[in-house]
Amino acid sequence: MPHVPEVGGNTANLRLHVPIHLRWGDLDAFNHVNNTSMLKLLEEARVRVFWVPESGDTAPSTAVIESGIAAGVLTLIARQEIEYLAPVPYRREPLDIQMWFGKIGGSSIEVCYEVYSPATDTPQTLYARATSVVVMVDARTGRPQRLTDTMREAWSPYLGDPLIYGHRR
Amino acid sequence: MPHVPEVGGNTANLRLHVPIHLRWGDLDAFNHVNNTSMLKLLEEARVRVFWVPESGDTAPSTAVIESGIAAGVLTLIARQEIEYLAPVPYRREPLDIQMWFGKIGGSSIEVCYEVYSPATDTPQTLYARATSVVVMVDARTGRPQRLTDTMREAWSPYLGDPLIYGHRR
Amino acid sequence: MPHVPEVGGNTANLRLHVPIHLRWGDLDAFNHVNNTSMLKLLEEARVRVFWVPESGDTAPSTAVIESGIAAGVLTLIARQEIEYLAPVPYRREPLDIQMWFGKIGGSSIEVCYEVYSPATDTPQTLYARATSVVVMVDARTGRPQRLTDTMREAWSPYLGDPLIYGHRR
Amino acid sequence: MPHVPEVGGNTANLRLHVPIHLRWGDLDAFNHVNNTSMLKLLEEARVRVFWVPESGDTAPSTAVIESGIAAGVLTLIARQEIEYLAPVPYRREPLDIQMWFGKIGGSSIEVCYEVYSPATDTPQTLYARATSVVVMVDARTGRPQRLTDTMREAWSPYLGDPLIYGHRR
Repeated sequence: MPHVPEVGGNTANLRLHVPIHLRWGDLDAFNHVNNTSMLKLLEEARVRVFWVPESGDTAPSTAVIESGIAAGVLTLIARQEIEYLAPVPYRREPLDIQMWFGKIGGSSIEVCYEVYSPATDTPQTLYARATSVVVMVDARTGRPQRLTDTMREAWSPYLGDPLIYGHRR
Repeated sequence: MPHVPEVGGNTANLRLHVPIHLRWGDLDAFNHVNNTSMLKLLEEARVRVFWVPESGDTAPSTAVIESGIAAGVLTLIARQEIEYLAPVPYRREPLDIQMWFGKIGGSSIEVCYEVYSPATDTPQTLYARATSVVVMVDARTGRPQRLTDTMREAWSPYLGDPLIYGHRR
Repeated sequence: MPHVPEVGGNTANLRLHVPIHLRWGDLDAFNHVNNTSMLKLLEEARVRVFWVPESGDTAPSTAVIESGIAAGVLTLIARQEIEYLAPVPYRREPLDIQMWFGKIGGSSIEVCYEVYSPATDTPQTLYARATSVVVMVDARTGRPQRLTDTMREAWSPYLGDPLIYGHRR
Repeated sequence: MPHVPEVGGNTANLRLHVPIHLRWGDLDAFNHVNNTSMLKLLEEARVRVFWVPESGDTAPSTAVIESGIAAGVLTLIARQEIEYLAPVPYRREPLDIQMWFGKIGGSSIEVCYEVYSPATDTPQTLYARATSVVVMVDARTGRPQRLTDTMREAWSPYLGDPLIYGHRR
């Protein structure tokens, strides 16, 4: 998973590029990737960006969370916002999910995404823009847990302008 | 599917009450209903509220859209916002998804939801609040299609205050 | 969830009747309930038939397994066989999943299913026939765990002829 | 998607090797890949093996079906059998789904699978064995449609011994 610096649409900051494969099963009866499947793709991109990999697997430098019930830490979603810009067809090549962080808080992080058609497309189509607020929670108590210095250091290179949603009220 | 008038949290307007059953498969490895499963529940509530029922099935008075590729009309999601307030455990009794409309536009409708624990709970727990903007689209051309007078009449009793999200930037 | 005695196609034994709601999201791009969604429906029927209900919820007399990681017991699937007899359309009324047990073993049970269109249909359509072998496993050691006398007593009224699949080699 | 000849467990015939990525969302509340998610993975492997790729994408020589409602041809599942041999954990590296054909019939094909841990593992773990019978159907009439000579030629190099399931009755 390469994470190439890039000048994004609304920010001059670094972005992570996470290739995520579609499945034909992500389509619904309208023959488009379903709106909830899109959030499944974002979930998978988050797991790959944030969670410590299994031994021997490669992962980006941001993958520093030991998450899971066994690890005692849950990464919960507090809120999400998503704008669907174009219907997404099935493709064999992985989508190019671009990610950066709009804010690194006390025990939470605001994750921003732009979902593009495969990196092999010229030009690429922007399918969706989204934001998730992820909170670190103690698995036993359910209480928020402070981000560690390791996390802040790993994530700060990807701090950028948060997404602004034009059509919201 | 009864649709009982009720004084809601932030509105004095009518709400639809749609009972939607969880599945154990909606849980993820954290043993909570997954954030994307919650949107699957909202999708199912929308289908039941908006789409013309099969012959012989009962449906609320709002169910006036002939949707589907065969019908030539698609109901697409333009944007969604969701706030997760408490983890949702598996339950056999259906969740009580309360719905109303924040805005009825030219070719779109803003759907507001509050997802509560089963109607048999006293008191009920509010698990999530969400908003979807649904656009009517011509299946062949992909262009927005104006809402009909039948739709406006069927939906206007449930027009209410849109949800306001406190934590967004 | 009523469990009415009935004379089935290939057995004179009692059957459980589990009503399970479809979701529009169970459809795939062919506009039929996807083959994997059908197994999701069977999974939900199993959970409702076998697992001890939450306090206050009703469940059939077979619901005697305290399953879950917290309970220390997992119910794993060892094998499944399924025959799809007719495409399943979206319906608002719940499917009528009929279940009985082909064999009650030392630490496993063979679950048989016939998936019918809603109980309100006359006549009902048989959509699929399936068999799952479910094994009780100790969550810590991963080793099979013997069925208890409580389980055997609860399940034996639904013991019947196993399904025979004609077309298999 | 390379398709390397290999001497398989129960056959000396060629196998297709299809790399399919897991998603964390494939796990269920037992923290294993859910039994229905496994069938989703097989579905995706089938789509990649059988369906004509989008322009510019690479695909194996077996990818000769123009499927879809628009193409007028549906590929439906008539029956499936699956044996789960070991719990599947989440991995970043793609699973190695090995496929061959147990029988090429008049209008159907019997697809055999062995699902292995990633190709980078030494040795690889065999997680599951499965068989699907896929039928070609005319989308308008719903009637079976004969396989073409192109299909038979493309698929016959991968004809091999069908899977035998020991534990079935």
